[in-house]
Amino acid sequence: MRPNDTIAAISTPRGVGGIAVVRLSGPDALPLSLRHLSVSGLEERKATYCQFDDIDDIVAVFYPKGYTGEPTVELSCHGSLYVQQAMLQALVDDGARLAEPGEFTRRAFLSGRLNLSQAEAVADLIDSVTPAQHRLAVSQLRGGYAQTLKELRQQLLDLTSLLELELDFSQEDVEFADRSHLMCLVEEISLRINNLRDTFRMGNALKRGIPTAIIGRPNAGKSSLLNALLADDRAIVSPIAGTTRDTVEETFSIDGVTFRLIDTAGLHHTDDPLEHMGIKRAIAAAVQADIILYVHDATRPWADAIDDMQTLQDNGVDLNKKHKWLVANKIDLPEANRHLPGFIEVSSKEGTGLEELQQTMVKVMDKEISSVDETMLTNVRHYDALGKADIALRQVAVGLSGNIPADLVAVDLRDALYHLGTITGEVTSEEVLGNIFGRFCIGK
Amino acid sequence: MRPNDTIAAISTPRGVGGIAVVRLSGPDALPLSLRHLSVSGLEERKATYCQFDDIDDIVAVFYPKGYTGEPTVELSCHGSLYVQQAMLQALVDDGARLAEPGEFTRRAFLSGRLNLSQAEAVADLIDSVTPAQHRLAVSQLRGGYAQTLKELRQQLLDLTSLLELELDFSQEDVEFADRSHLMCLVEEISLRINNLRDTFRMGNALKRGIPTAIIGRPNAGKSSLLNALLADDRAIVSPIAGTTRDTVEETFSIDGVTFRLIDTAGLHHTDDPLEHMGIKRAIAAAVQADIILYVHDATRPWADAIDDMQTLQDNGVDLNKKHKWLVANKIDLPEANRHLPGFIEVSSKEGTGLEELQQTMVKVMDKEISSVDETMLTNVRHYDALGKADIALRQVAVGLSGNIPADLVAVDLRDALYHLGTITGEVTSEEVLGNIFGRFCIGK
Repeated sequence: MRPNDTIAAISTPRGVGGIAVVRLSGPDALPLSLRHLSVSGLEERKATYCQFDDIDDIVAVFYPKGYTGEPTVELSCHGSLYVQQAMLQALVDDGARLAEPGEFTRRAFLSGRLNLSQAEAVADLIDSVTPAQHRLAVSQLRGGYAQTLKELRQQLLDLTSLLELELDFSQEDVEFADRSHLMCLVEEISLRINNLRDTFRMGNALKRGIPTAIIGRPNAGKSSLLNALLADDRAIVSPIAGTTRDTVEETFSIDGVTFRLIDTAGLHHTDDPLEHMGIKRAIAAAVQADIILYVHDATRPWADAIDDMQTLQDNGVDLNKKHKWLVANKIDLPEANRHLPGFIEVSSKEGTGLEELQQTMVKVMDKEISSVDETMLTNVRHYDALGKADIALRQVAVGLSGNIPADLVAVDLRDALYHLGTITGEVTSEEVLGNIFGRFCIGK
Repeated sequence: MRPNDTIAAISTPRGVGGIAVVRLSGPDALPLSLRHLSVSGLEERKATYCQFDDIDDIVAVFYPKGYTGEPTVELSCHGSLYVQQAMLQALVDDGARLAEPGEFTRRAFLSGRLNLSQAEAVADLIDSVTPAQHRLAVSQLRGGYAQTLKELRQQLLDLTSLLELELDFSQEDVEFADRSHLMCLVEEISLRINNLRDTFRMGNALKRGIPTAIIGRPNAGKSSLLNALLADDRAIVSPIAGTTRDTVEETFSIDGVTFRLIDTAGLHHTDDPLEHMGIKRAIAAAVQADIILYVHDATRPWADAIDDMQTLQDNGVDLNKKHKWLVANKIDLPEANRHLPGFIEVSSKEGTGLEELQQTMVKVMDKEISSVDETMLTNVRHYDALGKADIALRQVAVGLSGNIPADLVAVDLRDALYHLGTITGEVTSEEVLGNIFGRFCIGK
């Protein structure tokens, strides 16, 4: 499984800059580099100034066991597009293979330098933009819930031993393990798994942004409010590709808190079936969201807003369980109704009230975020694996209570163990690895 | 003049990548870094794995005399936006100053590691996209016409000495230097300066792209041809900000040759004064261009093209002195006239003939480019400085032939010396330095 060719890639961000780094990893990294350098050797870990062919003056560093766990050479050149490409081309012409996305980190995993969830944390760390995302990634890179997983695994192994004891003596028709005791153990493990899974909603929100549905009537100014918020200096705007659907959602961060904004069709009464679809989707977005940002046109009667809240509630949006921020927009207009109770007054046009809205958003979420554990689940793959482990455990429970033979129960137990093992990569498949590392950038 | 604070910047290209490099330079580079690192010291030039605060696991390298000629520390971190910014922020909070664009290279110049034209070559090297641009920049970085300039300078100094000899003995009313000999020397220097200046047209074309005017009647398909050329896999497209006007011209490179495309209004007979302006500008572009790319609609009579050639010639475009490529477009249409002599047949719509056109373009220009010297002038500042030196020399010639007193002639000579000196930076001003380094990226 361990590849033994030598790979090369530009490891710094795409584009032009002061310097760029071309990285080689594999058994031939050193001899292959030296054929292009104006020096006859590289001392270990020593930054050496030299020429790379007639392409550039560079600094080369050789690591006998680099990031990948293999011999690695890093070549720092001028950050010109031509120089970067020409050096890479020269190395490839000489037998290096262009690295695939994430292949350096994949090799770090295969050589045992990182476990699989740490390798995934590297990608999260690189993608981190806010302090919260960064903190979660670093925590996962340094172990994260690896300890919790280890304990869970041990408990499952203990359970298996007990069952196997029963199995070994099954010919003698003696039931060694007290099945009600085993049931207690299963329940305990399942509870721990579900506690971990419960951290996912907030963990995922911190990582990908807190899902925020923007709700309001047509022309209430939802889009202009959005643009005003995004245009503000304090906001960092970034498009993030949705993992479940192939859509790009607008996300923005204020003071380190990321919101994932879901713009919706305007709520209104209609008989048009097509428009009705849009409204149904708006309500579905509100159901999914952690936050409802309701935009009201302040020149319209207050009753509109009250009607809409009722509509949401009637359609399964439990407003008491969500954060909701009510915004009265267009207060710059003379006919605007002022001082509606519970509303933050805003004029997207003139930029008034935005500061107050942002402060409210951040203050509320900051409190929630600071209450969370750093070992929370942020990775949807881990969430799914824990879910599958739990389903297998439920089968174990059914088997135990139904007096199913121990060897059949053991199959489900091994299934639970398998799914836990996929998280840190004790068991894994080429397909899973391909999925994980394919999402990395090239050069990492 | 030599600044003595410590500067910091992200030196790798903007954005997300596998790794990024934060660079510090100045007297406090080492102690300032160490306050954030998990190690107590950094061995010279040794890549050291450590932690930077609680932000990231990094590799740090200390150079007692780095690129800038000052103590320098390079910190390689994960290429996350958050990590890059957080590390830079921590260093700035601790007393480092954010580097201005080009400030690292400016310090390399001020410390004497690079002369001014070499410092400019660093910017050219970083901006290089094609092999020709790269070759010119490397040649300039490694000295370029520094030798020619040195010789010119020496000749001017010799001339000054001869004149000063005359000056020293002027009280005795003896003319020591033979002025006709001096005149010969002036002419010789002026010739060398002008030979160097003559390389600028091609040097600048190689660096910025060969100016190519796209001429043709309205709806001949100029834009669609342009788009078809640009969309081709072999072409590298890049917008380059014009240095003389604030416009963005389309440039593209095929096999290392860069063309700077100037799209023009369609040529046609009109009485509309506004349209007439556009046509005048098209002709002006043709006058300036090295290459005319004439696009003819093959469904229209051949006579149109002949008329247009005549129009260009009549308006001062010397077609015999320019490369011209005649393209018959829209040959996919059944009514197209085929096999017009001298025309390359193309269908932008179907992509036919583009390959032949590109090959013709590259073949012709390759021949011209391979005939050029690598010490050619590419920098408009140098071109201007040489022009000013030459103007001063003409004044010297006037003075010598007009029997003007030697001390007045010497003033013009010193002027010529001054302008030569500005090229490599022996003499310079804060304003010139600000201009040069302000065009660099931050972090270099």
